[in-house]
Amino acid sequence: MTTANTASDRITLNIPLDIKPDTNGQDTIDSTTPPTSYPASKKVYIAGTHHTDVRVPMREISLTPTTMHTNDDAQEKPNAPICVYDTSGPYTDPDIVIDLKKGLLPLRLDWINKRGDVEIYAGRTTKPQDNGYSTDDRAGSVERFPEDARRSTLRAKCNSNVTQMHYARKGIITPEMEFVAIRENQRILQDDNQLEQHPGESFGAAIPKVITAEFVRDEIARGRAIIPANINHPEIEPMIIGRNFLVKINANIGNSAVASSVQEEVDKMTWSTYWGTDTVMDLSTGKDIHDTREWIIRNSAVPIGTVPIYQALEKVDGKAEDLNWEIFRDTLIEQAEQGVDYFTIHAGVLLRYVPLTAKRITGIVSRGGSILAKWCLAHHQENFLYTHFEDICEIMKTYDVSFSLGDGLRPGCLADANDAAQFAELETLGELTKIAWQHDVQVMIEGPGHVPMQMIKENMDKQLALCDEAPFYTLGPLTTDIAPGYDHITSAIGAAMIGWFGTAMLCYVTPKEHLGLPNREDVREGVITYKIAAHAADLAKGHPGVQHRDDALSKARFEFRWQDQFNLSLDPHKAQAFHDETLPQEGAKTAHFCSMCGPNFCSMKISQEVRDFAAQEGLNPADALQAGLAEKAKEFQSTGGQLYS
Amino acid sequence: MTTANTASDRITLNIPLDIKPDTNGQDTIDSTTPPTSYPASKKVYIAGTHHTDVRVPMREISLTPTTMHTNDDAQEKPNAPICVYDTSGPYTDPDIVIDLKKGLLPLRLDWINKRGDVEIYAGRTTKPQDNGYSTDDRAGSVERFPEDARRSTLRAKCNSNVTQMHYARKGIITPEMEFVAIRENQRILQDDNQLEQHPGESFGAAIPKVITAEFVRDEIARGRAIIPANINHPEIEPMIIGRNFLVKINANIGNSAVASSVQEEVDKMTWSTYWGTDTVMDLSTGKDIHDTREWIIRNSAVPIGTVPIYQALEKVDGKAEDLNWEIFRDTLIEQAEQGVDYFTIHAGVLLRYVPLTAKRITGIVSRGGSILAKWCLAHHQENFLYTHFEDICEIMKTYDVSFSLGDGLRPGCLADANDAAQFAELETLGELTKIAWQHDVQVMIEGPGHVPMQMIKENMDKQLALCDEAPFYTLGPLTTDIAPGYDHITSAIGAAMIGWFGTAMLCYVTPKEHLGLPNREDVREGVITYKIAAHAADLAKGHPGVQHRDDALSKARFEFRWQDQFNLSLDPHKAQAFHDETLPQEGAKTAHFCSMCGPNFCSMKISQEVRDFAAQEGLNPADALQAGLAEKAKEFQSTGGQLYS
Repeated sequence: MTTANTASDRITLNIPLDIKPDTNGQDTIDSTTPPTSYPASKKVYIAGTHHTDVRVPMREISLTPTTMHTNDDAQEKPNAPICVYDTSGPYTDPDIVIDLKKGLLPLRLDWINKRGDVEIYAGRTTKPQDNGYSTDDRAGSVERFPEDARRSTLRAKCNSNVTQMHYARKGIITPEMEFVAIRENQRILQDDNQLEQHPGESFGAAIPKVITAEFVRDEIARGRAIIPANINHPEIEPMIIGRNFLVKINANIGNSAVASSVQEEVDKMTWSTYWGTDTVMDLSTGKDIHDTREWIIRNSAVPIGTVPIYQALEKVDGKAEDLNWEIFRDTLIEQAEQGVDYFTIHAGVLLRYVPLTAKRITGIVSRGGSILAKWCLAHHQENFLYTHFEDICEIMKTYDVSFSLGDGLRPGCLADANDAAQFAELETLGELTKIAWQHDVQVMIEGPGHVPMQMIKENMDKQLALCDEAPFYTLGPLTTDIAPGYDHITSAIGAAMIGWFGTAMLCYVTPKEHLGLPNREDVREGVITYKIAAHAADLAKGHPGVQHRDDALSKARFEFRWQDQFNLSLDPHKAQAFHDETLPQEGAKTAHFCSMCGPNFCSMKISQEVRDFAAQEGLNPADALQAGLAEKAKEFQSTGGQLYS
Repeated sequence: MTTANTASDRITLNIPLDIKPDTNGQDTIDSTTPPTSYPASKKVYIAGTHHTDVRVPMREISLTPTTMHTNDDAQEKPNAPICVYDTSGPYTDPDIVIDLKKGLLPLRLDWINKRGDVEIYAGRTTKPQDNGYSTDDRAGSVERFPEDARRSTLRAKCNSNVTQMHYARKGIITPEMEFVAIRENQRILQDDNQLEQHPGESFGAAIPKVITAEFVRDEIARGRAIIPANINHPEIEPMIIGRNFLVKINANIGNSAVASSVQEEVDKMTWSTYWGTDTVMDLSTGKDIHDTREWIIRNSAVPIGTVPIYQALEKVDGKAEDLNWEIFRDTLIEQAEQGVDYFTIHAGVLLRYVPLTAKRITGIVSRGGSILAKWCLAHHQENFLYTHFEDICEIMKTYDVSFSLGDGLRPGCLADANDAAQFAELETLGELTKIAWQHDVQVMIEGPGHVPMQMIKENMDKQLALCDEAPFYTLGPLTTDIAPGYDHITSAIGAAMIGWFGTAMLCYVTPKEHLGLPNREDVREGVITYKIAAHAADLAKGHPGVQHRDDALSKARFEFRWQDQFNLSLDPHKAQAFHDETLPQEGAKTAHFCSMCGPNFCSMKISQEVRDFAAQEGLNPADALQAGLAEKAKEFQSTGGQLYS
């Protein structure tokens, strides 16, 4: 049922300890440690004004100058650096020494303590069962996170509520809120030479030109956005999820009973944030769940989500019918004390909805959904997550864990999309959202899954209506079922569309979906693919300034600034490697053509010649052409614009 | 400027000569020859009724039975085979011996001869310049296609017009028309057990339930669809491009002055049709263009497109200003005599439009567009393709070459999308469409390029209006510019959407776009990605029967018929390889779980248990659950459906 633990399960902790500046764009991706820097980039920080101890990291990409050819001279015109949203955390700050055995610095700890509403307490004692063992004999299990590096466990003082929503509703702008406001604005805090971008179509989203801390507060108070930020995860750099903000992505990691080791999972976490994921879900099952999670949380600068029912099920040896509220409650507290930032809770899988899935092609495909369906049937009782929902809210607000209300009845294939089971559950999730909000607990709603393109918008519209605009968090959706091995692509199509329509966070899909457990390269492919979908959605919605990076890259491309083109891309290493595959010579990086067309056929080159031709006439290109051609065009039109004069 | 010819340029012709039946799903993709069969598939043919010598190939995928567990027994229920559209040509027919030195059998030759409107003639004499050489000394050039295997050159008799559009307008149903009608229907000529599929949203397309030969004829007569089918390319299996038919894809191949050999290009052609491309464009530049093309055309069962201006430019040593009508005309005839099925002609790049591109970020990015813009500027004259458009039509109708009216001014980045230059050219393409139609010449229209999602539909709407519903053929579009190395994905998002909106054919983009010349693996990735986009579009438009393959694969997935899941997928080799990576054991192919979740967490397994549980009660699943739960549900609802009763 589970595999034996092997030596490879021992965490060897050699992950990102070497600080190897990597500013020349050379590819280090084949090494076993994540790169500690991006090519031609430096980490910069912007300070807050409400809270002067807020320092928001961003990545500044420096660019080479444009060479302007005018008559006989070549002049250089500098290009302003481009700042981009940076999810990689302290790993890419050369001034910070990373030690996985100590964990990251607790950025938020002062903020949390200053609010005066939390207390340190002993916390729950870790049990062998938390890691899937029946006794204290840890032979064969993974190395534990060092006792002396553990943080004190915090909880809300009696009668306190420590959620960001609670503060927002009291009118308070927390450091977390200011942090995300600055972070969301990074794209416009730069370069006055930005071109005007195309207007977006936002489907009712109301995206301001500048994101203020006040706006963040109001959106959170309204329930339209969340900042997942457990008080026991002070290491995070806060981020916001809501449809009036940049579209975010999540990467799933986690071992299973069949494959993968702890080290691999920590490695996937650091790598996935390097590539740009905004949150990480640890979906581990099998042995060592607790200890694996500790390593991940202590070393993660992004919020961590989990599906607590997975661990609860391990505690009852995989027998869904043996689950009960007490075991589940204990698991929630265990994970909340560790610092999990959001919990997927499948409280909408109601007993009466289960029959609605019986005629589906793929039944229930959510692991959590199927576990709870089985429990409901076995006991002929209502889902205990539903009957205990307010009890769960009490726990959530004690630590500020956000709900990710799980779509346990999401469709697992196109044929099952948008059916009665799915929408019945969504209605219940809407009901639960309002209950959570009565407790000032932050909520997002999970969505499908597998949906053909023409049926995607209905999902978004129904979610907004039923869940009163709580942020939507979808998996894809996949727009066809016939491409296992390429489901990152089948789903990126749906993800980009639903992100445009208003989904706030997109859960990635890797090429291994439906086939196997993703390795680090699959995680990279999945994350970059979803960065593409999220960015395409941001562009379509018309978020101010988001087109700037596209424009800068396109300008670099047109001007044959190859290295800038690589460095501005979502995956500089791959872009450069692909270019080098055909033209490895160093000279090719400055060549005014590429391997696709060669020198004669390069349209970019010819286009430049068109401009140069005009420049020779001593005018700026547009004027020159207008002037030079006006005569001709006039003559042409005066003949009636006939094809054959 | 051009590379020396090396030994690797000699075609060694070992490409798909070995017939190696490959029915067990084993991966042969690392060999240098394309597989000659698909796993668990056989080639079947459907005969015509109008024309009894019409035999339409399709691929039938056999499936394993479903195992039904009822109380103590296991019963097997067979699953009907699934037929899929097959672009791979005779290569995958075990009864046909392939010899690249002879070319494929001339399937259409009888059809063409029987019409009585063509004549054999000597044809143009090949010149050294056709291959980029100044003398007859062929030292270093590629092996020529054998003289004795060459076909006689055909042309329309004096005053005849041999286009499919001409026949259609005369009310004739040609064998080509019947062929495509049967081919388009393959998806519904099977398995009575098909589930009803979701209704599509077709944006004004009028897709019939069954495609008849009469419907094909009428669509071609109307100009809303084309069958690219040069009378000198009798080897093709006809296919149709139009928005009331399945969305098609094109793969670009071709060497450049900088890289790649003839053998590689023929290899890419056979492989790309194996993966599913519907047409291939040979975009070769540099040396040996003529001979490379001969090998490709003689061995291609799909229509071949070219951009003749590329070869014309080689004939004037890469100097755009030295181009003229005579050289271009001679090139058109050269290529039409070889059998090119469609020509990209950039006749819409007008002198007066060139200034509209001067302020763009990326100017003119179409190779052909930039060549013609340069010519126009150098001469201060109108584009000679525009002024000679009717002369071109005369050539097209002599051989039935279809126009692909090139979008020489398409945007090369998001910032330039939907601008004045692009739409001015589109208007001219509309004007030229009507002129071509006066000659009964078939036309499709090329489209962008780079377009953010919210601006895609405008492209389709304008194209339909300005070009009177002539088929649209777009490159992507890419929906963001920041992901070189992943532009197959940035563009698949746009391609799926514009395909849904009505684009008839999608030109693929490979991961190497903007970076390098694609190799065979890039071609595979590009083709499969575009098959996904096209299929997602077909589903969204609601083409009858297209969801059947998705449903069959999903059912196989739910029932743990792993091998069927692989075999039904667009890329069975990759699906199987990915699965084997984590669970290589043969037993895993029949395991009722996979590496992602392991046995306990498998929702598919639990879902099956839910059904089995019901089956034990001796009822069908839905009834059982309804019966078993009705009581409970009633009780629940009678308490007012309150959360906490």
